[in-house]
Amino acid sequence: MGNRIITISREFGSGGRTIGKLAAEKLGIPCYDQEIIAKIAEESGLAEEYIKERGEYMPSSSWIANALSARSIGGLANEDQLWSSQCKVIMDLAQKGPCVIVGRCADHILRDDHELLTVFIHAPKEKRAERIVRVYGESDVSIEKRLKDKDKRRKAYYQLYTDTEWGVANNYDVCLDSASIGIEKCADLLVELYKGMK
Amino acid sequence: MGNRIITISREFGSGGRTIGKLAAEKLGIPCYDQEIIAKIAEESGLAEEYIKERGEYMPSSSWIANALSARSIGGLANEDQLWSSQCKVIMDLAQKGPCVIVGRCADHILRDDHELLTVFIHAPKEKRAERIVRVYGESDVSIEKRLKDKDKRRKAYYQLYTDTEWGVANNYDVCLDSASIGIEKCADLLVELYKGMK
Repeated sequence: MGNRIITISREFGSGGRTIGKLAAEKLGIPCYDQEIIAKIAEESGLAEEYIKERGEYMPSSSWIANALSARSIGGLANEDQLWSSQCKVIMDLAQKGPCVIVGRCADHILRDDHELLTVFIHAPKEKRAERIVRVYGESDVSIEKRLKDKDKRRKAYYQLYTDTEWGVANNYDVCLDSASIGIEKCADLLVELYKGMK
Repeated sequence: MGNRIITISREFGSGGRTIGKLAAEKLGIPCYDQEIIAKIAEESGLAEEYIKERGEYMPSSSWIANALSARSIGGLANEDQLWSSQCKVIMDLAQKGPCVIVGRCADHILRDDHELLTVFIHAPKEKRAERIVRVYGESDVSIEKRLKDKDKRRKAYYQLYTDTEWGVANNYDVCLDSASIGIEKCADLLVELYKGMK
């Protein structure tokens, strides 16, 4: 079996990325998150902004209709190229050694080749809303709309590419409510579980 | 706020009950599981066998149709009586002091009055099948059918009475895969989380 890897799926604003970074620091292994975007850009030739926007999120429904129709006539959408580069970059990173990978369907991409601790981090909407305003600041769009939109598109993206349901407990080794448990404690639990992996 | 209580929802064969008992032992608090049945029988006058069969499981679809029609003409089904006794017994037990309660929608019943650590224990089908045969022995019904039937009815029951989706990560503080993490380790994690509750 390959390397021991923690993959973190997370709801927007749940602090999943922070938990991943903290756990990685405590374990002395790298945590890949934003770095992945630059690598995918290099691999695919696509713009970083595009990758950031489309690498985890499903676009609008009108776009999907176009993409499906493009596929059906044999066209290769940028999204397919993005997915294939994303898989390659994540597999390469995983191959390098033990690490934490945040988002981007890494749990699905690496499931056959490495020893995974698959994690889902979530929190109640009102707690995530508070955190988003604190961490990312206000925006013109209401916080409810931002949350709903991001969650919906992330879920749809995950489902399309992995054929697995996002946020359903059975699909992860461990799911944690970061609001009730606390960010630091979540990281500690992941460290403990990671160390306990045979 | 009331007492600190661990509620355990679990897939059939996942070892959730064993995890609850272990965690309770380590914490020196009671774990309520089968005991609840006798108490509900006393409270409701219903037979223990009936409570065992119907207290967590949705009956067949033809029964539901009958029950709904009985309700719509103002009849009080045994199931309603069972649910109301179950709520009372669980609320009384929770009132006594800190404890672990396995199954029976305790997370929902106690959500407003106590400080809960809500837990969902699951495991892949093949691991649960192995465990069921080991713990409960063989039966005439195939293991696949037993698993499917129990899961489906437990899920439907939970949904009917709580209006919340069973096994969806967001509805619990912590969800654990008992097969990948191990029964003993799951219990240790719950003990740690319980002790960390403010």
